[in-house]
Amino acid sequence: MSIVVQKYGGSSVSDAEAIKRVARRIVETQRAGHSVCVVVSAMGDTTDELMDLAEQVTPAPPARELDMLLTSGERISMALVAMAIAQLGAEARSFTGSQAGVITDDAHGAARIIDVTPGRIQSALAAGHIAIVAGFQGVSQTTKDITTLGRGGSDTTAVALAAALEADVCEIYTDVDGVFTADPRVLPSARKLDVLSMEEMLDLAANGSKILHLRCVEYARRYGIPIHVRSSWSQRAGTWIKDNPYEGEGAVEAPIIAGIAHDRSEAKITIVGVPDRVGVAAKIFGAIAESGINIDMIVQNVSAAETAKTDISFTLPQADGARGMQVLQSIRHEVDYADLRLDDKIGKIALVGAGMKSHPGVSAKFFGALAEAGINIEMISTSEIRVSAVTRAEQLDDAVRAVHTAFGLDSADEAIVYGGTGR
Amino acid sequence: MSIVVQKYGGSSVSDAEAIKRVARRIVETQRAGHSVCVVVSAMGDTTDELMDLAEQVTPAPPARELDMLLTSGERISMALVAMAIAQLGAEARSFTGSQAGVITDDAHGAARIIDVTPGRIQSALAAGHIAIVAGFQGVSQTTKDITTLGRGGSDTTAVALAAALEADVCEIYTDVDGVFTADPRVLPSARKLDVLSMEEMLDLAANGSKILHLRCVEYARRYGIPIHVRSSWSQRAGTWIKDNPYEGEGAVEAPIIAGIAHDRSEAKITIVGVPDRVGVAAKIFGAIAESGINIDMIVQNVSAAETAKTDISFTLPQADGARGMQVLQSIRHEVDYADLRLDDKIGKIALVGAGMKSHPGVSAKFFGALAEAGINIEMISTSEIRVSAVTRAEQLDDAVRAVHTAFGLDSADEAIVYGGTGR
Repeated sequence: MSIVVQKYGGSSVSDAEAIKRVARRIVETQRAGHSVCVVVSAMGDTTDELMDLAEQVTPAPPARELDMLLTSGERISMALVAMAIAQLGAEARSFTGSQAGVITDDAHGAARIIDVTPGRIQSALAAGHIAIVAGFQGVSQTTKDITTLGRGGSDTTAVALAAALEADVCEIYTDVDGVFTADPRVLPSARKLDVLSMEEMLDLAANGSKILHLRCVEYARRYGIPIHVRSSWSQRAGTWIKDNPYEGEGAVEAPIIAGIAHDRSEAKITIVGVPDRVGVAAKIFGAIAESGINIDMIVQNVSAAETAKTDISFTLPQADGARGMQVLQSIRHEVDYADLRLDDKIGKIALVGAGMKSHPGVSAKFFGALAEAGINIEMISTSEIRVSAVTRAEQLDDAVRAVHTAFGLDSADEAIVYGGTGR
Repeated sequence: MSIVVQKYGGSSVSDAEAIKRVARRIVETQRAGHSVCVVVSAMGDTTDELMDLAEQVTPAPPARELDMLLTSGERISMALVAMAIAQLGAEARSFTGSQAGVITDDAHGAARIIDVTPGRIQSALAAGHIAIVAGFQGVSQTTKDITTLGRGGSDTTAVALAAALEADVCEIYTDVDGVFTADPRVLPSARKLDVLSMEEMLDLAANGSKILHLRCVEYARRYGIPIHVRSSWSQRAGTWIKDNPYEGEGAVEAPIIAGIAHDRSEAKITIVGVPDRVGVAAKIFGAIAESGINIDMIVQNVSAAETAKTDISFTLPQADGARGMQVLQSIRHEVDYADLRLDDKIGKIALVGAGMKSHPGVSAKFFGALAEAGINIEMISTSEIRVSAVTRAEQLDDAVRAVHTAFGLDSADEAIVYGGTGR
């Protein structure tokens, strides 16, 4: 019997009615002949409400206790989903992350899964039960304390369980019909993609696509788990993300452009007047890395020959902007730069597609479309299957529209956005 | 170092402010030189809100999933209490019932504690941390599923942990200053008791005193754990409940009357015209016991000689009234009684005191006080240290007042009731 792992986000289980709807879908999947393991997020606003309670008690909650608090959210939703399934005459059993065997390191708030030992889930499935598992949480291998996985945690739980159960597919349910050529909230003319390679999805996720978290896609690629992104509100087929969709039996031709991602959550730091000598970049980015800040694009201007000075710009999450500045100030005596500038009004647009490799001229067309729309490019970065650019934040939506149209991605049908977004 | 177990109910942790207040009290206890293990209930209305969610999903939630749902309540409160303690500069670690080693049978919703293995709590205390434990919950020894202990569960958790940790005292915090001679909500002139024997507390609890659940007192007596019932809102000494408080060093004389309990939650079933022959009572109460209904008082009238028929009345929880009637109807062909009557408008009043043993005439004075207040007695039951009577429900408060005054228990000071009641 095939094993299906399904993941429902917070908006899919936002209240009793939504939970009953999801339960019907789960039971239908079982009755179609599958073994079903379901991963759920906390209901709608539960996590925000719990965070609010914590803030009322202390401005600096200990991470271990915050994890204990927040994990009650999935406990509530999973028990309710199991109850709703029982009401439909099927058997369900809910399991915490710990009970489901999601073993993590002890980095509270951002734990990494290091093993999955799903013995209890396998027993439940073998008994013909539907297993409901709390997303986003696990148990530390060393301290046995409850941990949370941080952003994208529930999707990652689903993929990790799918890998451990050797599932046939991991279905990620969301509030749109799949992965689109651009965010349908910004661009209603965006077109739904039927298939996508793991690499394309990785690049889209890394460049701001919110549909799947980078971490979950990385996990799926490592273990070869096909992901089916679809809506819990419709019965339509969604987007399949798998290895080599453009090769072998049933293959389609790789499109030049799979989609456009955009991101408004980054900031840019420019280090002005850096001495142009060996080891300076290593010193700067070594210090940044040590502080745990993830940087994305880096651009270094050509050195002005007469001064032997250069400017270095890089992007980092806005939330880390102030800390990034502090780190750089602390190494000023070693690097001897002239000035530091922080700019958090930037936007990032990325064009992703496996077919790009064999089609020269994609970058030129991309820059041309932006120029024609009157959008100035501040930074550029490219890879084999991606080209991305930094613009002013307020021009970002225009940039997405212009590039989408230039590459002929517009659809005649308007994309449907069914609800809010979950965790 | 002495070990103190403290238990705070739902009203003591009803919101962020209440939680901070409780945290201060806990930290003061540690700073006074004790190792502190704290048991908490769910915040104020959390349990009711979760029950309400379950009812929205299904009228008949599976017991296993209901336990999974409800146990999230203590998870929230205990994490918040631990955070509030951290904010005060002390170290706290919260533990679920399962993590704290509260092992139960698998009777979901009303599980019994069969073992406590508090290794993690002992490690936390040894490290100088304050341990915060979720009350009301445990883990099944056989299925490893999460269980709840049912009514009085958090108090029982506290006493069970106190026993396993060999604590010096189990402090039960509530919204009154201790155990009173009568319920101070009904009788503001009730007097606080300084000490009470385990047996007296058992009889008070068994007869409707809400201050401690019967189960928790039984556990404390079995393991010889002194209980100190006190208010979380004041610093006054409360009521000590211990073995033999009226013997040995520092003993006080056993008062004739320790207190008056009352109960409005019972119903009475009368079986009219029962053949007066051997084995009939065994048949009736065997069938009732088999159905899992707990009965309290039983009264059998003298048989009318000419008919060889008798009437049998007994009390049982109101919630079980309809089921009790069904059980009796199902054995009518065996018992051959004339009629069945259910009366759920009764009240029960009980007078409890270890000193009663050596003072004849207590019953006479009790009945005299009720008669003088114009209250009719419908059933009577006595034990060595207790005399109880059933009256009309609407006369119960008058009965408590009359008896309280007759036995000289009235205090000049008005008892303080600080808040609502928790689980």
